[in-house]
Amino acid sequence: MLQLTSCNRMLTILLILLSPYLLDDQKSRFLFHDMSAEVVDSNPYSRLMALQRMGIVENYERIREFSVAIVGIGGVGSVAAEMLTRCGIGRLLLYDYDKVELANMNRLFFRPEQVGMTKTDAAVQTLSDINPDVVLESYTLNITTVQGFETFMSSLKNKTFRPSKEGSGVDLVLSCVDNYEARMVVNQACNELNQTWMESGVSEDAVSGHIQLLIPGETACFACAPPLVVASGVDERTLKREGVCAASLPTTMGVVAGLLVQNTLKFLLKFGYVSPYLGYSSLKDYFPTMAMKPNPQCSNAACLQRQKEYILAKPARDAAANAKMEAEASAAAADVPLHVDNEWNISVVDDSEQENTGGTSSDALPEGLTRELPSADEFPKHSTYGATDTAVDDLEDLRRQLDALNAD
Amino acid sequence: MLQLTSCNRMLTILLILLSPYLLDDQKSRFLFHDMSAEVVDSNPYSRLMALQRMGIVENYERIREFSVAIVGIGGVGSVAAEMLTRCGIGRLLLYDYDKVELANMNRLFFRPEQVGMTKTDAAVQTLSDINPDVVLESYTLNITTVQGFETFMSSLKNKTFRPSKEGSGVDLVLSCVDNYEARMVVNQACNELNQTWMESGVSEDAVSGHIQLLIPGETACFACAPPLVVASGVDERTLKREGVCAASLPTTMGVVAGLLVQNTLKFLLKFGYVSPYLGYSSLKDYFPTMAMKPNPQCSNAACLQRQKEYILAKPARDAAANAKMEAEASAAAADVPLHVDNEWNISVVDDSEQENTGGTSSDALPEGLTRELPSADEFPKHSTYGATDTAVDDLEDLRRQLDALNAD
Repeated sequence: MLQLTSCNRMLTILLILLSPYLLDDQKSRFLFHDMSAEVVDSNPYSRLMALQRMGIVENYERIREFSVAIVGIGGVGSVAAEMLTRCGIGRLLLYDYDKVELANMNRLFFRPEQVGMTKTDAAVQTLSDINPDVVLESYTLNITTVQGFETFMSSLKNKTFRPSKEGSGVDLVLSCVDNYEARMVVNQACNELNQTWMESGVSEDAVSGHIQLLIPGETACFACAPPLVVASGVDERTLKREGVCAASLPTTMGVVAGLLVQNTLKFLLKFGYVSPYLGYSSLKDYFPTMAMKPNPQCSNAACLQRQKEYILAKPARDAAANAKMEAEASAAAADVPLHVDNEWNISVVDDSEQENTGGTSSDALPEGLTRELPSADEFPKHSTYGATDTAVDDLEDLRRQLDALNAD
Repeated sequence: MLQLTSCNRMLTILLILLSPYLLDDQKSRFLFHDMSAEVVDSNPYSRLMALQRMGIVENYERIREFSVAIVGIGGVGSVAAEMLTRCGIGRLLLYDYDKVELANMNRLFFRPEQVGMTKTDAAVQTLSDINPDVVLESYTLNITTVQGFETFMSSLKNKTFRPSKEGSGVDLVLSCVDNYEARMVVNQACNELNQTWMESGVSEDAVSGHIQLLIPGETACFACAPPLVVASGVDERTLKREGVCAASLPTTMGVVAGLLVQNTLKFLLKFGYVSPYLGYSSLKDYFPTMAMKPNPQCSNAACLQRQKEYILAKPARDAAANAKMEAEASAAAADVPLHVDNEWNISVVDDSEQENTGGTSSDALPEGLTRELPSADEFPKHSTYGATDTAVDDLEDLRRQLDALNAD
């Protein structure tokens, strides 16, 4: 357990004792509202703010400004929502029309006592309990209906949460639906709004999945390379044989949700590399990657429009990239050399200083640490150490074999 | 939503209405006890049993026979426990000495109202609610103490759950601890018991992790290749600078838990390939793999003993492998050819039959499906189809360029 000052410990104990008597609002104010980096057991954000101190993320607290829409609160979407909630995302928009069933219990998130509730209501119940700081908006609707699509579009456009935001009202849309029709609807909405989104999916046999980044005009949209066979005029799910359902596993869905939200964090907080496409083939633990350019003959008119804009914006993009490179180059040049004519950046170091820190003492360990293996310098002294012995034995053995061959 | 017979729907509604009034035992009997493959919304196992119908797993129901021990119920261990619980594992043994803190809320599983409870108690509360069919044993102890280690060992040896089981009383141990000392203790216990285990870990900067399979005598044990620097005589966690903690993310821990339990399922239910080592480097979505043989100079005496046994058992292993190969070969030979002297297994097929099923009609789709793209035979008719046009344009363009070059 981490060290606590006695005052903080007292406060924690007090809050634990009081928590059943606190109203939700009070809990929120006491426990969650401040995204502090302070390392105390009572700070739910300490392990996240540590990402900043460790140099992974430049400004973690920016996460509170972002809005993420999750379409489909099933095996992947619900876990993605929980991860983002625990990461302290600013606002989550949740879309689903379905109800929780006992048949969903083989995936994470929903609990048996929530059976019969809408997935959106059950999600809001669980998520607001976990982190009351997150603004939750839930939409119990089917985006593939005309009215559902209209509400979907207007909710994505709404900028009340961050009026200064450019473009739509959300920073990213995550598609976690389980059918082609719904994916095409998300694709249509995002192409129309010029909205970057991520698609996710898990195979019907439950043992593989994928995530994909879609930037309108820049990468292939979902209609750029359609599947060869699709359902037409009927509900895809009734096409399956009666009494038959797709398999699913909490493991595959947990991994896909984890990869999806990890790439969401990288995208929003600008660290690491955001994968354009990442597959997960669990039988062999194989993770294929690829990137797809948009299809100039895409059937989606909004995609063609975005492609045109992307091409037209090329000179501006190039200029910005050049300006950035030049800025970086001049920043590097600002690291003034020790001598003006010191082309190779050579500097003189005091010999005695060098000697003092040289040898094994340069590898000195902080108090409380010991070496599990002898250091390189100590190796010859430890002639009984296993690995060294073997090496010597093998060499002698080889020499004997060579001698025997030469004697023939 | 899946089709329900009205009788099943009635039963589901009745159970939902009654559920607040049912005792835990009654809930269990009503809802969970039968691992049925029936496809109804009220069956929590239908999506798991579908793995069998889809040919992924030969006998899913065997999962109820297995016992898995999870050491460390933190960010990885708790999610692993939930996944196995939702998969319907027979028995889970949970080990941890720590309490739930608000600082744990940035990882999945624990809820704010559980702050102050031991992690084992909180886990039992949540897991038994999710699936009362799983036998849960919780051990609130520190395995690195003498008494804790004794209880750990005797709990692993206990065979009451499945007296006929060979070896120890558990099928797999999952190490989900966060320090070297505890890993070495799990390693010691598993080497002594000749117990296969899986190790997992997440880096201090929260952006990478790994899982590893350890089979005593066959693969490297945790002491075969020790880290170069370890803590000695002090608690590793107090070595960290005061007021400083490691970073953690629900995403990385969710992915590591998912990969760990997926490999657990593959190991227990004998499908796919169990990874000897799988890394996850989230900044680049890179997944390194490797395999490590045991070190003949390992410092762990029990490991050396298991290595000796493994080498001694080689002739028996080879004989078993040969017998299996021969059995498979003779099973293949039992597929009698059409003619006794038909060395190349050639058979005659009726031409007219071939024609009837040939051409595009062999690609006939079930009712309700239409092709999104024209079939191969139809392509020439669709001269306006984009992709084809582009290809032709490009070729003509190339030819023109070539002609121009030749004309020079």
